[in-house]
Amino acid sequence: MPDAAQQTALTREAALAGVGELITDPDVLASYRHDQAAPGLLTAGTPAALARPTTTAEVQAAVIAAGRAGVPVVPRGAGSGLSGGANAIDGCLVVSLERLTRIADLDPDALTATVEAGVVNHALRDAAAAEGLRYAPDPASFEFSTIGGNVATNAGGLCCVKYGVTRDALLALEVVTAQGEVLQLGHATRKGVTGYDLTALVCGSEGTLAIVTQATVRLLPTPPAAHTLAASFSRLDQAGDAIAAIVRRHRPAMLELMDRTTIAAVEALAPMDLDLEAEAMVFARSDAGRVEGAEEIAAMARLCEQAGANLVLTTDEEAEGRMLMAARRLAYSALERQGTTLLDDVCVPIPTVPALLRGVEEIARRAELTIGTFGHAGDGNMHPTVVYDHTDPDQLARAREAFDAILELALELGGTVTGEHGVGLLKREAAARELGASLHLHRAVKQAFDPDDLLNPDKVPWHVAAAAAAATPTSR
Amino acid sequence: MPDAAQQTALTREAALAGVGELITDPDVLASYRHDQAAPGLLTAGTPAALARPTTTAEVQAAVIAAGRAGVPVVPRGAGSGLSGGANAIDGCLVVSLERLTRIADLDPDALTATVEAGVVNHALRDAAAAEGLRYAPDPASFEFSTIGGNVATNAGGLCCVKYGVTRDALLALEVVTAQGEVLQLGHATRKGVTGYDLTALVCGSEGTLAIVTQATVRLLPTPPAAHTLAASFSRLDQAGDAIAAIVRRHRPAMLELMDRTTIAAVEALAPMDLDLEAEAMVFARSDAGRVEGAEEIAAMARLCEQAGANLVLTTDEEAEGRMLMAARRLAYSALERQGTTLLDDVCVPIPTVPALLRGVEEIARRAELTIGTFGHAGDGNMHPTVVYDHTDPDQLARAREAFDAILELALELGGTVTGEHGVGLLKREAAARELGASLHLHRAVKQAFDPDDLLNPDKVPWHVAAAAAAATPTSR
Repeated sequence: MPDAAQQTALTREAALAGVGELITDPDVLASYRHDQAAPGLLTAGTPAALARPTTTAEVQAAVIAAGRAGVPVVPRGAGSGLSGGANAIDGCLVVSLERLTRIADLDPDALTATVEAGVVNHALRDAAAAEGLRYAPDPASFEFSTIGGNVATNAGGLCCVKYGVTRDALLALEVVTAQGEVLQLGHATRKGVTGYDLTALVCGSEGTLAIVTQATVRLLPTPPAAHTLAASFSRLDQAGDAIAAIVRRHRPAMLELMDRTTIAAVEALAPMDLDLEAEAMVFARSDAGRVEGAEEIAAMARLCEQAGANLVLTTDEEAEGRMLMAARRLAYSALERQGTTLLDDVCVPIPTVPALLRGVEEIARRAELTIGTFGHAGDGNMHPTVVYDHTDPDQLARAREAFDAILELALELGGTVTGEHGVGLLKREAAARELGASLHLHRAVKQAFDPDDLLNPDKVPWHVAAAAAAATPTSR
Repeated sequence: MPDAAQQTALTREAALAGVGELITDPDVLASYRHDQAAPGLLTAGTPAALARPTTTAEVQAAVIAAGRAGVPVVPRGAGSGLSGGANAIDGCLVVSLERLTRIADLDPDALTATVEAGVVNHALRDAAAAEGLRYAPDPASFEFSTIGGNVATNAGGLCCVKYGVTRDALLALEVVTAQGEVLQLGHATRKGVTGYDLTALVCGSEGTLAIVTQATVRLLPTPPAAHTLAASFSRLDQAGDAIAAIVRRHRPAMLELMDRTTIAAVEALAPMDLDLEAEAMVFARSDAGRVEGAEEIAAMARLCEQAGANLVLTTDEEAEGRMLMAARRLAYSALERQGTTLLDDVCVPIPTVPALLRGVEEIARRAELTIGTFGHAGDGNMHPTVVYDHTDPDQLARAREAFDAILELALELGGTVTGEHGVGLLKREAAARELGASLHLHRAVKQAFDPDDLLNPDKVPWHVAAAAAAATPTSR
């Protein structure tokens, strides 16, 4: 429970600073305590209050008020994060950006859009589409996640293999700093090297450096209609070979893989005659054009066959393409149907994807749990998904253990512990291990932006390192 | 001249730290005093010594030695920079990375290459091509500039309009910090969000945050052969309309523009029947494939005609394409033939390119100097090039004035003072103006990395701001 005196101080400072609306209703606060990270695994505090600003000035006021009251600020978009990055801290001020929903500018000639942080990815995509343009980054959450949240986590998605991640589409930011300043970072132009790339630095910093209030992003012309491929492989290594052969020669607009556990889960959810003997399915799309797209899909199909696929289906029709992709689209829902899911997100060098999936199968055997793996194989970014019963403490412990073993495996393979979901609370220990010797540089950057540790202070890996050091007398 | 005691201290510390070779020969040092920025405009000090390390450990030793001797370090690649970013400071240690030339790894399956800082861009391109792959970033200096220098300046080039800048191809870095630590930043994988994006932060920081010793970059499959277009427009606005129409519908692999001054200079250098009445020429390439590429070039040709082009030539043949591009390739050489050149590099929103060029013409008239403009119009990144006689102090002063007026114009148009060449010494004042309120955040980041101001300390905009403040008693 939040400290009453702290809450009173915050309320007083908020009124003075001009925060539009400060909510202290416990029921409302409860619904802002955590994001969509797996339940039962992460701590989530009780906020002292919630601000839902409608302008940048109100965000600024909220940060100033929290600073004066001495309570930490946890910024929050749609709350659809999967790593606990938006989980509240006891006594904090949650600043939800959900009401900053203005598309301030969409310039089809400059090929840019400037939107407030709370604009839903899908709304920006729709606005761009109305001008025959496209905002490329497409996290799976695009129907509900916000651009501010996408920027804060440097969200990925299915199109990254060809079109890059959120950072690649990001030109400039308006942010509120820990000192309560409103700053413009970056350039509205498509290129620009004046000053340090603070835009890229804030992107993916998960609300620990500054609060994003507005983003200027680049738009692209709408690509040609896509052609689609789905292939089944009796052996995982064959699928890995096909992926490697495809990315070396082609630029698929999407290149996905799912393993036999996921295939079985999908078939159980929605029978569609999937090959239950197959160790892996591969899905690819090409948007290289009417002729070259068809040729590219045909060439990818040949590469799948050469790699040993026992079934390859291709289509030049969008409607048929959607049907071929249906199994992939259902992957996560199908696994969720089987229990509580702990969705992992590791990225490994592309050639090691088969080794990752073999290792995950071994980890599942040891943990005696179902782990289905699917994801963006063309980038080496996979989502092993641990299925467990969160009401069973033993299963919960084994799930967490399996999850951690997957992170270790990714690091052993030369990978990273998070490809696109972020560190949040979920992966602080693993991130600290991965960052290793550069951890102190991260700490120095955090201090440069936020010397009083006001912004999302428990979401940074060195908190764990510091706690570990404090617990180990010899390291003092 | 460097202080003798400082030089002695540096030599002693270098021997202790294990710097491989420390050069103090004045003739050699003289050749490492500056980069390729316009002569006569910028200061260039005399280094106390030059280190040419062959290993990361020797770079580390050089930084440690300089720190102990209390002399600043100026890191340097090929010295082909255009902003004075590698210009020496009196009494500094120049650390040239030119002998770090190893391609440590090129993995065609992972689609990555890890190269030392001194590897020439062209050498990496060749090594990638031998595997059927491509390293996309192609600064005009690619035949002699190094990857370390490309990373330090976040170099652009002609392919950026479709394939992005150096940062977009950069995955991970090995750097030596101001404290003499060797750190790994970023991820070798194609996606990764663990920790702050320090790789992007160091990219473009012009040797002021850390010294890049090794870079891991992403490679792409070689794109299809390109199709080419060249068009002449009697009016600049027509060319601007054509550019705007093209980028809104297509993804050219190159989209360049040059103005009438440049056209005249090229025709004077190499007569090729260019239309001297034309206010602008536009050049475009498409690598969308055999069929779609030809279609895309044909569609771009129609857009040029609709915008009012009086001559449009297209070709699907590479050899003919090179001939069509010849005028654009000669642009800078042709202007250089007319005198000393002060090559500017501004980036503006795409629709304002015609306004920029009109403004530059007006600035040229006022300065009574030739200013030819060419550049990457598809990104809004243009290179107005002031031609003057650097032995004439009056012309030099007018050239500098015209140069500064162009920077102001770019800012007025919503642009940035450097699109791809960097701030260096050349644009510190303008960069300080552009960065405005965020300057203190840049300073804080610099201090986080380099608290003793050891690395390239005079190449940061707030040095100017600080000097201005010191000169203005009221601001104290």
